[in-house]
Amino acid sequence: MPKIHRFALVAAFAVTLLTGTAGAEEPISLRAMGSFHVGGRLVELTGKPVKEMALTPGGVPAKFDPNGTYQVEQMYVQYFLPAQETGAYPILFWHGGGMTGVNYETTPDGREGWLNLFLRKGWSIYVSDAVERGRAGWAQYPDIFKSEPLFLTTSNPFSRFRIGDGPDSYDPDPAKRKLLPGSQFPNDGYENFTKQIVPRWTTTDDATLAAYLAEIDKVCPCIILFHSQAGQFGFKAAQARPDKVKGLIAIEPAGIGDPAQAERLKAIPTLMVYGDFIAQDSRWPKIRATGVAFGDNIRKAGGHVDVVDLPAIGIKGNSHMMMMDKNNAEVAGVIQKWLGDNGFAKKP
Amino acid sequence: MPKIHRFALVAAFAVTLLTGTAGAEEPISLRAMGSFHVGGRLVELTGKPVKEMALTPGGVPAKFDPNGTYQVEQMYVQYFLPAQETGAYPILFWHGGGMTGVNYETTPDGREGWLNLFLRKGWSIYVSDAVERGRAGWAQYPDIFKSEPLFLTTSNPFSRFRIGDGPDSYDPDPAKRKLLPGSQFPNDGYENFTKQIVPRWTTTDDATLAAYLAEIDKVCPCIILFHSQAGQFGFKAAQARPDKVKGLIAIEPAGIGDPAQAERLKAIPTLMVYGDFIAQDSRWPKIRATGVAFGDNIRKAGGHVDVVDLPAIGIKGNSHMMMMDKNNAEVAGVIQKWLGDNGFAKKP
Repeated sequence: MPKIHRFALVAAFAVTLLTGTAGAEEPISLRAMGSFHVGGRLVELTGKPVKEMALTPGGVPAKFDPNGTYQVEQMYVQYFLPAQETGAYPILFWHGGGMTGVNYETTPDGREGWLNLFLRKGWSIYVSDAVERGRAGWAQYPDIFKSEPLFLTTSNPFSRFRIGDGPDSYDPDPAKRKLLPGSQFPNDGYENFTKQIVPRWTTTDDATLAAYLAEIDKVCPCIILFHSQAGQFGFKAAQARPDKVKGLIAIEPAGIGDPAQAERLKAIPTLMVYGDFIAQDSRWPKIRATGVAFGDNIRKAGGHVDVVDLPAIGIKGNSHMMMMDKNNAEVAGVIQKWLGDNGFAKKP
Repeated sequence: MPKIHRFALVAAFAVTLLTGTAGAEEPISLRAMGSFHVGGRLVELTGKPVKEMALTPGGVPAKFDPNGTYQVEQMYVQYFLPAQETGAYPILFWHGGGMTGVNYETTPDGREGWLNLFLRKGWSIYVSDAVERGRAGWAQYPDIFKSEPLFLTTSNPFSRFRIGDGPDSYDPDPAKRKLLPGSQFPNDGYENFTKQIVPRWTTTDDATLAAYLAEIDKVCPCIILFHSQAGQFGFKAAQARPDKVKGLIAIEPAGIGDPAQAERLKAIPTLMVYGDFIAQDSRWPKIRATGVAFGDNIRKAGGHVDVVDLPAIGIKGNSHMMMMDKNNAEVAGVIQKWLGDNGFAKKP
């Protein structure tokens, strides 16, 4: 693995020499870019009282009738298709809980995220906002969504995502935060990261999976890269569409598929990636063990699963948000090498 | 104007001949693409009761403490900078009420939206989701946002946005809808359009303007293209930052700036664009008159304002959502010509 990375660095340096613009990135050339919504259903609300609401602050209240038909539970997908495609299949990027596809765009400290880093290697990428989040929109509760939304405080993810050392590690002043030793998270960008957080419901899993299946039916064959909460969606969607999903990349999955149906994943090469500081954490040893055990199920059913603990291959300090860590390009390189090793390069 | 369009068609045909790929689009080459959040503030919630909520349906209820500090009222911006820039300034695309930046991406019937069409002409584009919407996220109400959100039914925009002829013109079956005669809206894509709609508050105008100013302070000098509800934000933001805003393009603005401060806009060339079917509508004659009167204020203060009613220059059938109408490229061409005529091409 380290050898590969040194080679990649040499190659990048050679490109720099050829173009004569040291430090400047090459343009990203796209044969297409765009977006669409997919999935969802129509819901009729009836029998609700007409409300009086001012449409502008201090304005005259107007009658507002909430009864009618609503479009709900769709999801949003934005795609970027490189002019020089090197991947045999597009990759779908699925985010975790309380997040949107923004996770994969520019990092909170302003570097290129995995979207750009994979595009630059010739992969077609579909970045989505799952049901209830971001550009997917959200629906009335408790009429349509059955629970209240949860909101994350700014400090909540700091220790939970293994950036800070312990529940009291966060401080509004970046210099006063107690980081895990060698943390790769861009601490100075943490405030920007918290601006990405969106409200989350706990009762929309079925709708979310249904919309992801609609995305697969529209876009695939494909590879799916999924993070955290999307662990359950990535594995379950592949179990529902084993013919259309050609590869799975699980980034610290916090959920799994149906172990009794592990056999449905046997033809789908799967990579699981875990970051640093897991053993000492109060929650992550259990979460990792659940994911690894599910991988064992797939293996026993005849499938191929690689589990990469980044520290074990010399890549240290990664948080749960490794797609935006300072070494996010190095982690992307591990995934890209795995894709190549597993035959996902485009056939000439 | 028609002459210009014929020339553009001839030029496009020449490119096709040169590349030998009839019908295929040229790649979009970007020197950079990415995203960021900007603006917002921290709010502390205290004294709220701890709730019991199941984090998964049927799961054991967990304690959830809503007290703490929240990041709220930020906005989301995604940018695309072409490798061959022809514009003197980037253009900020601001959406209307209940909408997100998705309005400017692929049209609901799958054609290229204004984002791509302006990028292809060499303009740097910043597409945003305003406070409360899409990837900007939203905040607790009534604690932080002071009102309840409004949700649009699927039928609501159909006549209000001058697609259908009258309040009863919508039908779930596209074939049974009563369209305005010659409507350019892609009727078969109307369901996809309704999937773009997001909840809207009526009490966030100040926060929205503050975040837009933060965007201007980060990105500009610039041109701002704004639609509908963003009429007030575009004009007010330019009045607050007349040194940084170099041009204004108001697409059917539903709000205006401060008439008493029209003088602050006198150095900013301004274009107002209105679509078809306005005279016969119950609301739009008044909305248009308010915008045009504000333009008169700017002119009287020494400014330059062009008002283009599309039907008056032979472009007929446009709805309120002209960026996604079937002739959206022709309307973009009108704007692009105005930009050139007003000196916004990059100096060699």
